[in-house]
Amino acid sequence: MSFVLRWPVKSKMLKVGDLVCSLCWEKNNGLERVFSGIQPTGIPHLGNYLGAIQNWVRFQEEYSSALYSIVDLHSITVPREPKVLHQSILDTTAVLLACGIDPQKCIIFQQSKVPEHVELGWILGCLTNVPRLRSFSQWKVKSAIQKSEGSVGLFTYPVLQAADILLYKSTHVPVGEDQVQHLELAQDTARLFNKKYGVFFPVPQTILNTTKKIKSLRDPMAKMSKSDAQALATVDITDSPEEIVLKFRKAVTDFTSEVTYDPSGRPGVSNLVAIHAAVTGLSPEDIVRQSVGLDTARYKGVVAEAVIQKFAPVRSEFGRLQEDQSYLKKVLQAGAEKAKELAAPVCLEIKRMVGF
Amino acid sequence: MSFVLRWPVKSKMLKVGDLVCSLCWEKNNGLERVFSGIQPTGIPHLGNYLGAIQNWVRFQEEYSSALYSIVDLHSITVPREPKVLHQSILDTTAVLLACGIDPQKCIIFQQSKVPEHVELGWILGCLTNVPRLRSFSQWKVKSAIQKSEGSVGLFTYPVLQAADILLYKSTHVPVGEDQVQHLELAQDTARLFNKKYGVFFPVPQTILNTTKKIKSLRDPMAKMSKSDAQALATVDITDSPEEIVLKFRKAVTDFTSEVTYDPSGRPGVSNLVAIHAAVTGLSPEDIVRQSVGLDTARYKGVVAEAVIQKFAPVRSEFGRLQEDQSYLKKVLQAGAEKAKELAAPVCLEIKRMVGF
Repeated sequence: MSFVLRWPVKSKMLKVGDLVCSLCWEKNNGLERVFSGIQPTGIPHLGNYLGAIQNWVRFQEEYSSALYSIVDLHSITVPREPKVLHQSILDTTAVLLACGIDPQKCIIFQQSKVPEHVELGWILGCLTNVPRLRSFSQWKVKSAIQKSEGSVGLFTYPVLQAADILLYKSTHVPVGEDQVQHLELAQDTARLFNKKYGVFFPVPQTILNTTKKIKSLRDPMAKMSKSDAQALATVDITDSPEEIVLKFRKAVTDFTSEVTYDPSGRPGVSNLVAIHAAVTGLSPEDIVRQSVGLDTARYKGVVAEAVIQKFAPVRSEFGRLQEDQSYLKKVLQAGAEKAKELAAPVCLEIKRMVGF
Repeated sequence: MSFVLRWPVKSKMLKVGDLVCSLCWEKNNGLERVFSGIQPTGIPHLGNYLGAIQNWVRFQEEYSSALYSIVDLHSITVPREPKVLHQSILDTTAVLLACGIDPQKCIIFQQSKVPEHVELGWILGCLTNVPRLRSFSQWKVKSAIQKSEGSVGLFTYPVLQAADILLYKSTHVPVGEDQVQHLELAQDTARLFNKKYGVFFPVPQTILNTTKKIKSLRDPMAKMSKSDAQALATVDITDSPEEIVLKFRKAVTDFTSEVTYDPSGRPGVSNLVAIHAAVTGLSPEDIVRQSVGLDTARYKGVVAEAVIQKFAPVRSEFGRLQEDQSYLKKVLQAGAEKAKELAAPVCLEIKRMVGF
């Protein structure tokens, strides 16, 4: 299999080292399609925004096609309250739109509205061996904390993830470090299907996220996480200015008052610098330079202010959209129709190849 | 929970001891619906006919609603050749029609044409614990003979089976002894869903098959099986008269020439008597009485003749239907539409209840 340089698509510039499998490229008619999913688990926090959503906004400009799915089917692999889940789906939609996801530039849709995801999931599950799933580190961790080991859904969701991606013949998938194993399954499954039934799927490429992981404000050794029991550990992107000021004021740092960037030696203050850098677009070094003379107490106020500034428009737009649920439903409805238009012929062809 | 006598529906007569849960009954508006599935694995054999298909023909008269699904999604849980699978789906349809399944009296359809099966399968999988599936004896047996333990599809197919049944709010499911564990999962899953989301599914009842298991003609201790490596062990219901005569002539019996019915002491000849009884509708005792004076060699010819007589019309109708693939496709198309009409509102309501 040979590799060729991929040429610029839409506004995206060619980068040296940007390689794509020529076979997949041709099979996909030269289309570059990015796919990603977000669980409807409430309001995203700073880490979600900087690690994913902000890139999604960029990708919709850079790729000729971008699909963003609110993966409600994945979210029920652990128990969810129906009313809360329903509201979370709308809230997640509102947040994404408020952050700049533009339904004119990408397809934003609810996974469960496109049955082809589970249809392909079943077919790919028949190509996946059980021991492979058992090796997933997320299964090991999550099943250990569930009663009776966790559900079949939790066990098999990496297969559904592979289907999510392959259903649209996606070529690019942004992944965090903890999802690399999952994308490898999608890649291997694409290869396996192509080998068994004939070349059909492009093998999707990783877009590795290089943004530094945002850490908990209460424990700078742990990553910022929605499931953190400490309310002050996590800054949601729609938090009020008062909440943001409070959370940064209470952020754990050390007993040195100077502002420096040294993630291993001084994780607390370095996390603040990393957040400050990410929301302003400056480098940590620039941030440190412009903060000379500030002690950490005053510096926390500066970071809080930068975060408030960054998310003020998001917060206000989110509030407006939250009041307009019929608009949100319309956006999801239109997105599902567009996604289905892409998914239906692919799924039909796959079923034909399988022998149905 | 109280139980009431269920009253006669359609032509079915009330039998003493026929009980149904009153709550489920009311929830289902008094409808009695039977659901069953058949894998498209080629031409059914005598055991399949006597153990299942012949009852299906009866149920379509006795129940107010009957659905028979050609479960192609289940059949890919082990590797299948696409062309062979495709032909098998049409052959299975032709056999069922030739045996008397009447698309005017029941819904006969291909599982993969109704995506709601996998949609509900996913939701129910999120209510099923992994250890439960590991305990299934069919998984233990089948996975042991597969490379790398078997596929995720093979592991999770009892959940899809539960979805097949519950999707139509079926009240009755005919099961062989080897499927009792599977129906129990469907029952427990219905109860679990009802408890978590509100009473919705009737808990399906077992129609236990009391027909004696037909044994292999080459090894009367083993059941007649499609996967038997010995061609002479299995009589397909579309076998030619010559093939049927040959297979019965080569049937393993013992060194006593008399015809008696003693399944444990004389399994070989007793299997012939059982087949003879089943295809003529007589009791084994009547068969033995009318066979006095015959030695087993001649008796084999008599049984072969009875089998030939029984299946001559099936064989000829099957041949005719096999030539008319466009009719078979039309039947499947119409069946899928009817099944979808029932499945779509149920699936929509379930998704609403779950929070999607």
